[in-house]
Amino acid sequence: MHMVFTVAVAGASGYAGGETLRLLSGHPEIQIGTLTAHSNAGSALGEHQPHLRGLAGRILEPTTAENLAGHDVVVLALPHGASGEIASLLPADTLVLDLGADHRLVDPAAWTEFYGSEHSGTWPYGLPELLLASDVHGERAVTKQRENLAGARRIAVPGCNVTAVTLGLQPGVAAGIIDARDLVAVLAVGYSGAGKSLKTHLLASEALGSAQAYGVGGSHRHVPEIEQNLRLAGAPEVTVSFTPVLVPMSRGILSTATARLAAGHEHATLTDVRRAWEQAYDGEPFVELLPEGQWPTTAMTVGANTALVQVAIDRRAGRVVTVTALDNLVKGTAGAAVQSMNIALGLPQTMGLEHEGTAP
Amino acid sequence: MHMVFTVAVAGASGYAGGETLRLLSGHPEIQIGTLTAHSNAGSALGEHQPHLRGLAGRILEPTTAENLAGHDVVVLALPHGASGEIASLLPADTLVLDLGADHRLVDPAAWTEFYGSEHSGTWPYGLPELLLASDVHGERAVTKQRENLAGARRIAVPGCNVTAVTLGLQPGVAAGIIDARDLVAVLAVGYSGAGKSLKTHLLASEALGSAQAYGVGGSHRHVPEIEQNLRLAGAPEVTVSFTPVLVPMSRGILSTATARLAAGHEHATLTDVRRAWEQAYDGEPFVELLPEGQWPTTAMTVGANTALVQVAIDRRAGRVVTVTALDNLVKGTAGAAVQSMNIALGLPQTMGLEHEGTAP
Amino acid sequence: MHMVFTVAVAGASGYAGGETLRLLSGHPEIQIGTLTAHSNAGSALGEHQPHLRGLAGRILEPTTAENLAGHDVVVLALPHGASGEIASLLPADTLVLDLGADHRLVDPAAWTEFYGSEHSGTWPYGLPELLLASDVHGERAVTKQRENLAGARRIAVPGCNVTAVTLGLQPGVAAGIIDARDLVAVLAVGYSGAGKSLKTHLLASEALGSAQAYGVGGSHRHVPEIEQNLRLAGAPEVTVSFTPVLVPMSRGILSTATARLAAGHEHATLTDVRRAWEQAYDGEPFVELLPEGQWPTTAMTVGANTALVQVAIDRRAGRVVTVTALDNLVKGTAGAAVQSMNIALGLPQTMGLEHEGTAP
Amino acid sequence: MHMVFTVAVAGASGYAGGETLRLLSGHPEIQIGTLTAHSNAGSALGEHQPHLRGLAGRILEPTTAENLAGHDVVVLALPHGASGEIASLLPADTLVLDLGADHRLVDPAAWTEFYGSEHSGTWPYGLPELLLASDVHGERAVTKQRENLAGARRIAVPGCNVTAVTLGLQPGVAAGIIDARDLVAVLAVGYSGAGKSLKTHLLASEALGSAQAYGVGGSHRHVPEIEQNLRLAGAPEVTVSFTPVLVPMSRGILSTATARLAAGHEHATLTDVRRAWEQAYDGEPFVELLPEGQWPTTAMTVGANTALVQVAIDRRAGRVVTVTALDNLVKGTAGAAVQSMNIALGLPQTMGLEHEGTAP
Repeated sequence: MHMVFTVAVAGASGYAGGETLRLLSGHPEIQIGTLTAHSNAGSALGEHQPHLRGLAGRILEPTTAENLAGHDVVVLALPHGASGEIASLLPADTLVLDLGADHRLVDPAAWTEFYGSEHSGTWPYGLPELLLASDVHGERAVTKQRENLAGARRIAVPGCNVTAVTLGLQPGVAAGIIDARDLVAVLAVGYSGAGKSLKTHLLASEALGSAQAYGVGGSHRHVPEIEQNLRLAGAPEVTVSFTPVLVPMSRGILSTATARLAAGHEHATLTDVRRAWEQAYDGEPFVELLPEGQWPTTAMTVGANTALVQVAIDRRAGRVVTVTALDNLVKGTAGAAVQSMNIALGLPQTMGLEHEGTAP
Repeated sequence: MHMVFTVAVAGASGYAGGETLRLLSGHPEIQIGTLTAHSNAGSALGEHQPHLRGLAGRILEPTTAENLAGHDVVVLALPHGASGEIASLLPADTLVLDLGADHRLVDPAAWTEFYGSEHSGTWPYGLPELLLASDVHGERAVTKQRENLAGARRIAVPGCNVTAVTLGLQPGVAAGIIDARDLVAVLAVGYSGAGKSLKTHLLASEALGSAQAYGVGGSHRHVPEIEQNLRLAGAPEVTVSFTPVLVPMSRGILSTATARLAAGHEHATLTDVRRAWEQAYDGEPFVELLPEGQWPTTAMTVGANTALVQVAIDRRAGRVVTVTALDNLVKGTAGAAVQSMNIALGLPQTMGLEHEGTAP
Repeated sequence: MHMVFTVAVAGASGYAGGETLRLLSGHPEIQIGTLTAHSNAGSALGEHQPHLRGLAGRILEPTTAENLAGHDVVVLALPHGASGEIASLLPADTLVLDLGADHRLVDPAAWTEFYGSEHSGTWPYGLPELLLASDVHGERAVTKQRENLAGARRIAVPGCNVTAVTLGLQPGVAAGIIDARDLVAVLAVGYSGAGKSLKTHLLASEALGSAQAYGVGGSHRHVPEIEQNLRLAGAPEVTVSFTPVLVPMSRGILSTATARLAAGHEHATLTDVRRAWEQAYDGEPFVELLPEGQWPTTAMTVGANTALVQVAIDRRAGRVVTVTALDNLVKGTAGAAVQSMNIALGLPQTMGLEHEGTAP
Repeated sequence: MHMVFTVAVAGASGYAGGETLRLLSGHPEIQIGTLTAHSNAGSALGEHQPHLRGLAGRILEPTTAENLAGHDVVVLALPHGASGEIASLLPADTLVLDLGADHRLVDPAAWTEFYGSEHSGTWPYGLPELLLASDVHGERAVTKQRENLAGARRIAVPGCNVTAVTLGLQPGVAAGIIDARDLVAVLAVGYSGAGKSLKTHLLASEALGSAQAYGVGGSHRHVPEIEQNLRLAGAPEVTVSFTPVLVPMSRGILSTATARLAAGHEHATLTDVRRAWEQAYDGEPFVELLPEGQWPTTAMTVGANTALVQVAIDRRAGRVVTVTALDNLVKGTAGAAVQSMNIALGLPQTMGLEHEGTAP
């Protein structure tokens, strides 16, 4: 005997929605219910997600609360700013996972500064491996966000770049080895992270053979979310210079994130540093510190819910350099959603996510 | 209760071997046994297939019959010409799947002409969907190769390009609608089909932004294999002009294969033509004729054991044009092996292969 | 002392217009005049063609006959169907080069069949190397289109795919060695050939890692133009099955075009065949038959006005196979325009086009 | 009347050598002389650089001082460590340009630390735009490296990554606006920078769809060269965390380099900052600060001797962020060599380098 949960997906014709469906198709306890879209409502999913052969004939319904109601789980793969209203209309006991940014930030002012609209409220954050540092009798205790997701009925799935930077740096923050002021992160990112919108700079002719930065100078909306995470991981103060660079691949994020060694840790050895990362990810099924000397590539993670991390000390620069690879659509978005869903529903967190990556 | 079969993979550090392991990792009735390599023996699999996290620590053994013996199944992912000898040393009741070309051709002379060495013998051919036409009391009867694989203990897995061309054209051949003389096939192929060998024309700098043909003019080794298949599908005579073109993608084959309408069928309608393809692939889980108007792309098949076919009539040219997309490492190689293995072992043929493709 | 000709470019914000400007920027006898655009009028060229540093500050004017008048040369880089009207308003002694299709076809019925509108008339065809066969006292005489361009004041620049197929096959047609009935051409083409229009299938996420065919089954608008050219080259009858395949590169066409050996030439040797191609292109600065054994790649031609051809005989298939590489934006479009312009103006045809390609 | 200088190129079959020949082919005052190679000696250049049609028939000689002697200019495009010996055998009045690293570093200890061999000596550094700060009566005076190249007969051409980082940051250093301690630079780089060597991680199958970091943690050989340049630009102390990331393109570097605002300049406006960069590059033909709001992409520079820079202030992070795009083979290597050669020979520095980039 096994339970089957029904899932509706709003925004099924986009990249995040499609990836969610790909993962759910292989999930043994899930039955895929209603699929909705905005301008593509009325057409068959096969026109938009032709790789999902098993769902090709499904007709997309308009994205309304009525169409989404009546499922155990609703996944919202909508543009930023669009999920607040519809979420408020869904029953409280439905598990709602928001792949957009609307419910990630705790601070309403940060939301308004970076997104320019009114804040929709804050939901439990869907990064189970997020480290949460607290002081217990003067000692630092570190727990993980996973426990906050058990039984949750609203989950805000993190931004893909945020996950890459957070997973790379947080062990050093929680261990007090690195200084979270003056972080610098530069990410090579694939085009699917920019979605399916029709913009000239997203055309293949523009992308092929080129690299282009965007959101330079602290304006990217992922900045406050990174800061929020690393504060939770134990940093009293966080500043991060964050620059994503679009490179000619459809998927993947390779994040190079660097921090100065914290005061008192200037002479930390690589063994010391690695120990912090090993401890943070010991037993984690989806986040791994690679063996010394092996550097992550995005190809190692394509299609899998895997984040691979490596760390080095640059003595000359006095900095720890971390490199993190993940698939923006899986561990960066849809895989994180399924993993969080599993936890919220009381299923094994790896269910439907055990498959290896697809390389080369 | 369920049976578990043990599988050894020879050539585990290459692309075909790696892909076989990726698929077997998700197969519920398989236990992965010994992994072997030639020059990489002694190193860990994780150095060569870092995307296969669950097998990263496995140490590669030398490729010897001793190391491969004692498994229910042995997969040989070796260079062409290398499997004949080792296969002869394996027990007759071990299921041996050869991903190389050594045991595909029925005609020893064709082998010697195209490969230049002595023929190793012919094994049952691992393309379950291959149509086999025969005359029964003056009527053409069509069966499929699948039935020849049940219980087989030696299977020759087809060449990836051959599978693409065969699946595209064989329905028209079997139905007598197209003339198999004067076929022309031009394939856009990804680089992983060329393997991991260190050659200048396979370098990223040479590949990026470029397209290059190879094996032009009838010299490619896949030619006699295509001819063999289409003769089995019912063509009295087959000639094919076959040209693969390397294009900047790591995986995928898009085969454009065209044939003249057969005498007596010059006025066939698209409905007539589509009917032949629909009949051929009706009920097939892995080969599909797309709906009218939708053309296959390789992205629709990446990572999946799927071949997608579309067909058109070019009235002006008097030709049927077929386009077939598949992933050279899956339906073109490792997926075909697992599918054939399932059939040979009496398992459901789709076991371990149900997952959808990974796009974009 | 040297003459300087002024050139206006209509459609300067698109790919063809930009490439024309790139080439004209290095032309010693040209002064770039007015640049026009449609929806981008009023903005600076640097927003659309940021690689053209020397012209970055130029403001785009609306595309009107008034703005284009008063130049020695006008290049129309407009969507198909848009050049007919504006061309009719330009002075008869202005050299007008149309990069669109409007004035290429001789047969108004073919125009209407493939483009669906009224024909704008036929202009001299801007492929100087096009072979023109005629019967002179029962002997075949072959001249070239070049001589029809001297002094011309209206020139229709060929379609990029058409140029690739024509250059590959026409020597065999003119020499009578190949049969132009039942030609098959499949082309790997880069995305810039599809222009800058915002369509989902042209997005980088869709293109990267994928190959996709389009215009399959004889519907592509380049079909009648290929047929027209090869008839001029001496074929009494031409049919061509033509399929372009978009592959992940921004520029380049690799055309694989094949034809049966003509009756009476079934036993032609490679030397016989090569002789026809050598004669056709002997002395041509921009079209070259590669040495035996070397196959063209598109990377060999990027940025240069070069077309490279290779030829093989497939004895098994009874076909000659030709592979032609060129840069769709240069010899396929803007380079052909500049070369034709040079001829029309009485300048050396290579002026401004002598630079080598950019590889890797 | 015009002077013609003869140039020999050692290492003509590699990427840097090929690019040098591409540029020299279009140089009006240069005659290309002997071409040499190591393992490829005896073969025709056309086998290795088939895009250089005009030189295809040239036979490569062995790389010896005898073969290189007797030219006005010798370009050494050899592996690091190979140029020291051969350079010492060339006449003192021959202009020798070393594209390798051997003669770049002033500090022999830095050479030995990063390259592990004995230092070959220091040559004038071929970055004409390098700012040289000095104190003149207590005032900072800034000159440029260009003047040190006039008449030089030995020139060390900079490393490609070094040029990108240096051009991005040096104006702020020279103006005292940024603090050169704790610089962080992460570069998206194309594969041609890694040369033509046959290594698994350089294969197309590994590169396509992936991003991979290398030389992480301060071990990259370009680190001391960056430090040396920025000290010359006026920084009392320089530390840089430097990480190159290979991304799937053949050419191009997009460098994101960031520095804290210097003490006393924390409140500098964007206008203040831009002024420093504008002054540094005012009148420079090959280095340009883009208009506010436009960010460089590598596609803007492909094939051209152009470096494009943009700058932003990240108030939240207290950092200036610079993005620099250039073509690693042109302004990063061969173009820098030709520019420096022009200066050394008394020719206009732009000669042979005026062409625009090739995009898309």
